[in-house]
Amino acid sequence: MSESTAVTAAMVVIGDEVLSGRTADVNINAVATACSEHGISLVEARVVADDIDAIVGAINSLRAQVDYVFTSGGIGPTHDDITADSVAKAFGVALLEHPTAMQLLLDHYSDPAELTPARRRMARVPEGGELIYNAVTKAPGFRVENVYVMAGVPAIMRSMLKAIFPTLRGGDVLQSVTVRVERGESSVADALTAIQARFPDVAIGSYPFTEGGRYGTNLVARSADLTRLGAVQAALQQLADDT
Amino acid sequence: MSESTAVTAAMVVIGDEVLSGRTADVNINAVATACSEHGISLVEARVVADDIDAIVGAINSLRAQVDYVFTSGGIGPTHDDITADSVAKAFGVALLEHPTAMQLLLDHYSDPAELTPARRRMARVPEGGELIYNAVTKAPGFRVENVYVMAGVPAIMRSMLKAIFPTLRGGDVLQSVTVRVERGESSVADALTAIQARFPDVAIGSYPFTEGGRYGTNLVARSADLTRLGAVQAALQQLADDT
Repeated sequence: MSESTAVTAAMVVIGDEVLSGRTADVNINAVATACSEHGISLVEARVVADDIDAIVGAINSLRAQVDYVFTSGGIGPTHDDITADSVAKAFGVALLEHPTAMQLLLDHYSDPAELTPARRRMARVPEGGELIYNAVTKAPGFRVENVYVMAGVPAIMRSMLKAIFPTLRGGDVLQSVTVRVERGESSVADALTAIQARFPDVAIGSYPFTEGGRYGTNLVARSADLTRLGAVQAALQQLADDT
Repeated sequence: MSESTAVTAAMVVIGDEVLSGRTADVNINAVATACSEHGISLVEARVVADDIDAIVGAINSLRAQVDYVFTSGGIGPTHDDITADSVAKAFGVALLEHPTAMQLLLDHYSDPAELTPARRRMARVPEGGELIYNAVTKAPGFRVENVYVMAGVPAIMRSMLKAIFPTLRGGDVLQSVTVRVERGESSVADALTAIQARFPDVAIGSYPFTEGGRYGTNLVARSADLTRLGAVQAALQQLADDT
């Protein structure tokens, strides 16, 4: 894969509840997995607070560096949902009630009196934004330029990912092989360095684990070139057999 | 809690395996929980790649903004473990073999021939750094100024957190109360906004969930002032009873 064709992405998780430890984020892994499956290289993920300046800062820093920025969280109806406000500020555009988003809410709440000010908040989209639909709720996410704004609730987030990924430009999908060694990683480190030196174009990682009180290491190689990957796999397997 | 006494922290997770989706990070939640328990406000967490420039950039940006920076990952014996190199570069100091870290390794490997070049890598500490011990392995983490460098393996990471947190300056510990409402959050959003307006000094969040196909919302208030927190709890409970 040549550098020029690499497609890159970054993620911004918006949520005091993650930074307080109350909630363990699972959306980074969902986005990371989706990116890998589409040949998109996720280069950074940030968790920021429910704070406009923090959100604006992260989005503006990252959207200039990568092809796609994905955000999760802060698009619900309550006072602490400030992602739409923040994205509008980041792009310097107005935050407007989107007619299609309003219609979705009107269709959902048969009695117009149910469309409270809080619920109307969910129809606000930065000017020029396009809606991101999902199969779980009526409240959409939205895209502004290369920034994709999605829900924090994992099931809704995953539904939105399904909607947007087919529209993204993908890259060469990296395949990976894993070779398991029943020894701690320091036992294989020098040999692994030698293998990496022989195959500088293949990303090789080493992941220690313990299982039933014994040390082991997963050796993982990733590449879009299956011939090279096969050669690395053979070298790693030889290393495992020799260890 | 006055703004001037707030103690702040940030986290940097170092690991291609998290960004590829291969591994789901659990260390952010461990640090977030430890911070909350010690009255330290975790203001940001970043996941960056196994790339020196990315690690240096994240550490230098964050260490200037907060009281404490915690890192996880990249301190093992293999070629992709480059956190120590990166921290040395971030501080502009040399990377040296730390005598105490070397002694720990020598004590562990009774045969000096076992102290391979790869294993010696684990004794490298930026000049002026202090070791962070753990109860799981012989390989230490280290601290340079306000940056605490820890392992990525969760059990080792948690052991290092236990070692360092008693040495940190804590802040006022926020207590939290949770009131559960058996309705979607848009049903309570307007009333919640009114409660937040009455108690601007108490952080109030709203977390929707689904359970057995039904919508519900957890209303969470956090404050160090138990009197104020009690008043908010009563208001939230009234809201839940009225809904």
